[in-house]
Amino acid sequence: MRILVVNVNTTESITDAIARSAQAVASPGTEIVGLTPYFGAESIEGNFESYLAAIAVMDRVMAYDQPFDAVIQAGYGEHGREGLQELLNVPVVDITDAAASTAMFLGHAYSVVTTLDRTVPLIEDRLKLSGLWDRCASVRASGLAVLELEHEPQRALEAIVHQAELAVTQDKAEVICLGCGGMAGLDEQIRRRTGVPVVDGVTAAVMIAESLVRLKLSTSKVRTYATPRPKNIIGWPGRFAR
Amino acid sequence: MRILVVNVNTTESITDAIARSAQAVASPGTEIVGLTPYFGAESIEGNFESYLAAIAVMDRVMAYDQPFDAVIQAGYGEHGREGLQELLNVPVVDITDAAASTAMFLGHAYSVVTTLDRTVPLIEDRLKLSGLWDRCASVRASGLAVLELEHEPQRALEAIVHQAELAVTQDKAEVICLGCGGMAGLDEQIRRRTGVPVVDGVTAAVMIAESLVRLKLSTSKVRTYATPRPKNIIGWPGRFAR
Amino acid sequence: MRILVVNVNTTESITDAIARSAQAVASPGTEIVGLTPYFGAESIEGNFESYLAAIAVMDRVMAYDQPFDAVIQAGYGEHGREGLQELLNVPVVDITDAAASTAMFLGHAYSVVTTLDRTVPLIEDRLKLSGLWDRCASVRASGLAVLELEHEPQRALEAIVHQAELAVTQDKAEVICLGCGGMAGLDEQIRRRTGVPVVDGVTAAVMIAESLVRLKLSTSKVRTYATPRPKNIIGWPGRFAR
Amino acid sequence: MRILVVNVNTTESITDAIARSAQAVASPGTEIVGLTPYFGAESIEGNFESYLAAIAVMDRVMAYDQPFDAVIQAGYGEHGREGLQELLNVPVVDITDAAASTAMFLGHAYSVVTTLDRTVPLIEDRLKLSGLWDRCASVRASGLAVLELEHEPQRALEAIVHQAELAVTQDKAEVICLGCGGMAGLDEQIRRRTGVPVVDGVTAAVMIAESLVRLKLSTSKVRTYATPRPKNIIGWPGRFAR
Amino acid sequence: MRILVVNVNTTESITDAIARSAQAVASPGTEIVGLTPYFGAESIEGNFESYLAAIAVMDRVMAYDQPFDAVIQAGYGEHGREGLQELLNVPVVDITDAAASTAMFLGHAYSVVTTLDRTVPLIEDRLKLSGLWDRCASVRASGLAVLELEHEPQRALEAIVHQAELAVTQDKAEVICLGCGGMAGLDEQIRRRTGVPVVDGVTAAVMIAESLVRLKLSTSKVRTYATPRPKNIIGWPGRFAR
Amino acid sequence: MRILVVNVNTTESITDAIARSAQAVASPGTEIVGLTPYFGAESIEGNFESYLAAIAVMDRVMAYDQPFDAVIQAGYGEHGREGLQELLNVPVVDITDAAASTAMFLGHAYSVVTTLDRTVPLIEDRLKLSGLWDRCASVRASGLAVLELEHEPQRALEAIVHQAELAVTQDKAEVICLGCGGMAGLDEQIRRRTGVPVVDGVTAAVMIAESLVRLKLSTSKVRTYATPRPKNIIGWPGRFAR
Repeated sequence: MRILVVNVNTTESITDAIARSAQAVASPGTEIVGLTPYFGAESIEGNFESYLAAIAVMDRVMAYDQPFDAVIQAGYGEHGREGLQELLNVPVVDITDAAASTAMFLGHAYSVVTTLDRTVPLIEDRLKLSGLWDRCASVRASGLAVLELEHEPQRALEAIVHQAELAVTQDKAEVICLGCGGMAGLDEQIRRRTGVPVVDGVTAAVMIAESLVRLKLSTSKVRTYATPRPKNIIGWPGRFAR
Repeated sequence: MRILVVNVNTTESITDAIARSAQAVASPGTEIVGLTPYFGAESIEGNFESYLAAIAVMDRVMAYDQPFDAVIQAGYGEHGREGLQELLNVPVVDITDAAASTAMFLGHAYSVVTTLDRTVPLIEDRLKLSGLWDRCASVRASGLAVLELEHEPQRALEAIVHQAELAVTQDKAEVICLGCGGMAGLDEQIRRRTGVPVVDGVTAAVMIAESLVRLKLSTSKVRTYATPRPKNIIGWPGRFAR
Repeated sequence: MRILVVNVNTTESITDAIARSAQAVASPGTEIVGLTPYFGAESIEGNFESYLAAIAVMDRVMAYDQPFDAVIQAGYGEHGREGLQELLNVPVVDITDAAASTAMFLGHAYSVVTTLDRTVPLIEDRLKLSGLWDRCASVRASGLAVLELEHEPQRALEAIVHQAELAVTQDKAEVICLGCGGMAGLDEQIRRRTGVPVVDGVTAAVMIAESLVRLKLSTSKVRTYATPRPKNIIGWPGRFAR
Repeated sequence: MRILVVNVNTTESITDAIARSAQAVASPGTEIVGLTPYFGAESIEGNFESYLAAIAVMDRVMAYDQPFDAVIQAGYGEHGREGLQELLNVPVVDITDAAASTAMFLGHAYSVVTTLDRTVPLIEDRLKLSGLWDRCASVRASGLAVLELEHEPQRALEAIVHQAELAVTQDKAEVICLGCGGMAGLDEQIRRRTGVPVVDGVTAAVMIAESLVRLKLSTSKVRTYATPRPKNIIGWPGRFAR
Repeated sequence: MRILVVNVNTTESITDAIARSAQAVASPGTEIVGLTPYFGAESIEGNFESYLAAIAVMDRVMAYDQPFDAVIQAGYGEHGREGLQELLNVPVVDITDAAASTAMFLGHAYSVVTTLDRTVPLIEDRLKLSGLWDRCASVRASGLAVLELEHEPQRALEAIVHQAELAVTQDKAEVICLGCGGMAGLDEQIRRRTGVPVVDGVTAAVMIAESLVRLKLSTSKVRTYATPRPKNIIGWPGRFAR
Repeated sequence: MRILVVNVNTTESITDAIARSAQAVASPGTEIVGLTPYFGAESIEGNFESYLAAIAVMDRVMAYDQPFDAVIQAGYGEHGREGLQELLNVPVVDITDAAASTAMFLGHAYSVVTTLDRTVPLIEDRLKLSGLWDRCASVRASGLAVLELEHEPQRALEAIVHQAELAVTQDKAEVICLGCGGMAGLDEQIRRRTGVPVVDGVTAAVMIAESLVRLKLSTSKVRTYATPRPKNIIGWPGRFAR
């Protein structure tokens, strides 16, 4: 089976890290294909960039010309998953949902530790829309930007561990979700430091995507995610024009 | 004062109707400028089209090179308002929120009557995110597509009245919101037929936009809607590239 | 257009301040009439006084013998708005709702800063009933009584600014609502001190009342706010006896 | 022990029926004193009348010059209970809360059957404020006015039974609350007809009032229901002037 | 009337204390019978022990061979009440619900102070399921185990008072519920120390059980708590085998 | 890897069917071990039976003397999962949660179709406690008992399809969850008949259990599901005595 793992930003090294992390947990027969959008911001830390990424991710997936079995949208708290679900007939898994959904099997409440404070409301809103908010103890910001995670891994780790510890002691979280695609691979270290299970959305999403494919389940097309009606799309420079 | 009223689809005749409707209620000193996105779908009836519209609306507003005092996003239940709020320093009013917020001053519960059933969950989700869901009795679909509203006005009117009556008698709505920018101008007829106040999001949004400008209030920049951080945006064919 | 702005307490100087503040933002053609109840407490800081004010406000409005186009109830978190809506055919706007509703167009979450801690639950409950609670980050008390606001304006300002800052930094509010009619006029100073938009319910209510009148919208009479049924009212010393 | 049972309307025959019903279930040592407000409407079916009753009930209780141990406010879904709680040091029990609270010990969900449809939102709102809404399956209106209950008992019974049956079969209620003080005494007949437990708020409130007195528990005075602060109350023709 | 008060653990001295406390507030004609389960843990501080207690309580009640009028399950936040309600035709009152329900008549919000932190989520979940969560300000742990309450009463008292004070000052609770059957009898001391009403679930439950019996009300049998269908129960060493 | 799939009732043929269904979707290296409790009811259709099953399942798992990697509790809406999580260090997956969690990746809302109406509130409550309720459109009963599913498969299928269709058309479900372990294997037929994805909790749980094991994630032990404290457990005839 082939699973597309689409980065939401245009930084190739993050795409590579995500894809490596995904491949590391994939089943023997699963091929992970990492995709970087053709346009958009180098990192996503707000609504404007996230909306642009929503379209860029759809554009990139539509441009992929080989068969595939599932798509993972590898941005935490980003817009766009619903659009992909309309456009595709294969399962679409957002890492925000994947991490939260997995965390709920591991503890009574979970927290998310993300990058900048300004992204916290986006994540909260996405979890609310996905119906996975009820057992969320908190969404906390480490204060580091997405690209700082890459360039200052040790400082990032410390900042994330610090917030994770506060989530456990103050907010009563029993599980931590890593709230950024760029945190892929940090889960084990943070688990050792905090003593609670740590869920990385990318690897969780690989499990869920594989599971849905194995169970032959895909997006319901009866209402919200029905295929778009045929209509004129004008002026668009990319692949949606018809 | 100048208020931009941005259509979410690329159908100019709808832009014109919306702008006319907005100008009709605007204060003497207010100039309404109707804008049509440069790209996107001729009508928005789902998530993919709505996400594309989100970017198209931002793109069109950023391309407007005259001063303006407020922006109205004239799509019901569409994505994107938060992005505009980040990009601009003037108030941004979405007609979804404007209609609901106004309706809550008029009755204990309101319903929305929209176009196709597939758009109902989008509207519900936007109202939930905006914190205006609590007094929503129902979102009902007339079953007519956006463009059918234009081409078959009488049939559209009957279908909307029918659902509005069900909203009042079965769902206990006391106010009806017109759930599509393309319904602008139908409010008075529907009010006469149903006996309850009918709120058109476009005219409600003009009032709110004017009010915010008069009160010198605009979007808070301390967190969720802070100006995007400077960063590399690549590959984008439109106006966001830096 | 004529808008009645009714104080909820019997302190004339507060009525004057509220009316002045309202007139300052009203449109050229709008006449603001400040009304003080004929009976009740000099300030409202609890349920008993608030219930008495509810009747006193209705009594005062019913005693007003000139035509008017809308009524503003200028008490924060007080009882009674629903009664006025039943008795009148013109729009009724409570400043509690007006401030919250306006704040929601300006930021992702808002806080209210009010007077005494004992009034916090009243405000919370009114916001819940009005369906405007979902995006409320907190209701905070400055610790100053209503009349202290009048007599010690500088101390009041400091106390309100202090709580507003806590609301922003700790509760993640992005907008502040002034939680007392007697705070009218303080918005600009608090905005400068805190850096976030500050909404004064009185001026916000003027905008909304004018807007509803301009849109020819008024209270729905089909259910909750239907005109009271004709019935014997006995023993009442005021204007409701029939 | 002496318990005041205060009717919310001015119809003496209803006061008598309520008091009789209360006395019938009271413990041997309990004296029930039925009180009729000195002013107000003959029946309460809306917010204006209910707010007037709120003050009238407080006025009547304050005028009572003998010692008493608890007060029952015998109106379903009416305003005012919080004011009484501030003014008194003895327990105050509203029959709305008493019925709902009791019903929740008897089944997984309960419904309320009340009089006119226009009072349904009042009852829903009171239950929400009291924190007793979560297990409410529905509030249904029999369509009969309060005074019709008195004058046409058999027709009233049939209408109530009909709605109770719909509550059980359609709304999945397992218990029925009688949603009007004037329904006191009908519980046994409705139970026989519907096969589910039927709770009359008046008798339930007697049990709770007696229980609180026996346990020496009364209203907390630390915050919401603290005694009103001493202040000037002017112009009031009744007993609150100081 | 005879009321069974069933301890959830197997420690006889706790059963005795609970029964004494219950008898002390019972009406003259009421006989309290304290029952200790035949099996289970010496104290209940988690889900496994609580599930075992659920069955042990049902087993013990079914083994009681004299008539009785009501049953009180005297564990705070434990499982099992719904099973008893199915098996019996007399009212069943859980002290968790009894305390919360009573507290809601005394203040705008209540907190629970319990034993170990690990039991907090159990109590929260039970209150949510019972529909009594809405006005809960917090559930706080004293940090003392159930049996320490018995052996170190003074230290327990101090720890409970400390958390109760935090509940009042920080969480804005106006009433405290004692969150453990083994705290029976401490209410008066804690009330004196904190200045707020303190509700002991055991005595509150006696009042409610007596009240339901006096009102001839018992569990609805139409749906959730219908008598179990006749079926083969195998292998069970206790009293449920048929 | 070895996964224990524990039936909640004592009917061996249901255990076999569940285990077969689980093995059919398991990965090559996964061994499914079906377990039947040593005691309890032949089918679980209510709280008493479900509480008994909770203990019986824990008892059966504790008696299993071989190593294993995860446990699936194969009853829909049953009690007990939290107890197993305390007792074990390997992941525990309840099929109720597994089905709902999986369904939420497939559509905007899901419904559950179960057996008897009396079990509907149990399922609703379990979904609420698990934080998976928000996107549940409805829980519907087919009206057939658990054992009728076995003995009258065709009639069961028709009844389930009928309710699933109502869930889609009336409740706006986009995905159907099979609400009984005994429905394992019916998913494909119901999907064909209704046109929406159908999730069987047993196969979904196998995917999740395998995923958690592969990701080396297990139950958090810091709070709610901490290992039971050592204590005296007396009188218990089974395996928990120490």
